[in-house]
Amino acid sequence: MQLELQLSSEAPSTGSPGTVRPGGRTARTRAAVRDAVLAGLVEHGYPGLTVEYVAEHSGVHKTTLYRRWGGVEGLVTDALDFAGEDSWTPPDTGSLQGDLRALAREVVDAFGDPANAAAPTAFIAAAFQSPRAADALHRFYSERFARCAPLAARAVERGEAPAGTDSGAVARAVSAPLFLRLFITREPIDADIADQAADAVLAAVRAGVYAPPA
Amino acid sequence: MQLELQLSSEAPSTGSPGTVRPGGRTARTRAAVRDAVLAGLVEHGYPGLTVEYVAEHSGVHKTTLYRRWGGVEGLVTDALDFAGEDSWTPPDTGSLQGDLRALAREVVDAFGDPANAAAPTAFIAAAFQSPRAADALHRFYSERFARCAPLAARAVERGEAPAGTDSGAVARAVSAPLFLRLFITREPIDADIADQAADAVLAAVRAGVYAPPA
Repeated sequence: MQLELQLSSEAPSTGSPGTVRPGGRTARTRAAVRDAVLAGLVEHGYPGLTVEYVAEHSGVHKTTLYRRWGGVEGLVTDALDFAGEDSWTPPDTGSLQGDLRALAREVVDAFGDPANAAAPTAFIAAAFQSPRAADALHRFYSERFARCAPLAARAVERGEAPAGTDSGAVARAVSAPLFLRLFITREPIDADIADQAADAVLAAVRAGVYAPPA
Repeated sequence: MQLELQLSSEAPSTGSPGTVRPGGRTARTRAAVRDAVLAGLVEHGYPGLTVEYVAEHSGVHKTTLYRRWGGVEGLVTDALDFAGEDSWTPPDTGSLQGDLRALAREVVDAFGDPANAAAPTAFIAAAFQSPRAADALHRFYSERFARCAPLAARAVERGEAPAGTDSGAVARAVSAPLFLRLFITREPIDADIADQAADAVLAAVRAGVYAPPA
């Protein structure tokens, strides 16, 4: 499950509050502000992030930031909401095992490289200190896991999973052992750990653990 | 997997650096300091924890704290090492499913009550900001998961698990979906979620996911 937080200045083309037009001036401002928020979180962490820092690094005036985002919590929350506006879809490899392994490998790819991992890690850390950041993180992952419905539907169609298999529970289960190692037990992750996580979920799916009782 | 951080003044009776004698004056000092560190982490979080706070709340002089613990990072690290010196053993219910479900329920019990959850949550948060706290958290869980070896050994003996089943991987897998919901996706956990986590691991164990290839 990739927590993709691109540090480019690309803005998503989907509408969002305050957007004048897709790719327009307001969207560019929002992208610049988001980039500054990510840079600040990575550099100083949530406790050290200030509106002043964001103003300086985005070129957007402090009074504009306060008016549109309210303050640091609003800035962090919007940056995370913004990250959720991408076009990510779950892997479609032709088999449930392939899809689950690809999903797990995405977590390894996203967090295995410290440069990629810095921004999502900073968001996960911020959620410990800001209830609004925690809500935004919750929204991000809920929406992302909801996108995994086709993965389970395809598996059911192919006869690889029982009818009614809960795609959200499956997607959470695949990523869980990797996030545990990254942020709780503080252990490395690699492709073997990813495959084991995927194969464990495959066995549980086959056993009907994620489907309603027959 | 219970991250048991009792806020009582009980000191573990096992030897530890600086302990004069089990239950003696030095052990009592360490327990008082540990309690003050936990209270400070819960109240202010790692960024707001100071040696002054710990001195005031433990009754131990600041110069003693600096001399014995070096500073805030050393205090947090030792509090976590101290928590690992308990006598926790994994559940022994007579069946692998029972043991796995009991293990998962321990996480729900430990984190379901906000009062119990505050201290371990504060440690997990501190690990994002302090490499030494991250190391201590890693040590804590490594040692705790290592204690789960008898759980897997009993299952192998009873013919419920393939020979060579990796008890550490099993214990991590049981707690992973619960920790994911608690600290990444920020979703509630309950007994049903715990049972699902346990049953998923049971299916994976039976399928040989945690055992070497036959």
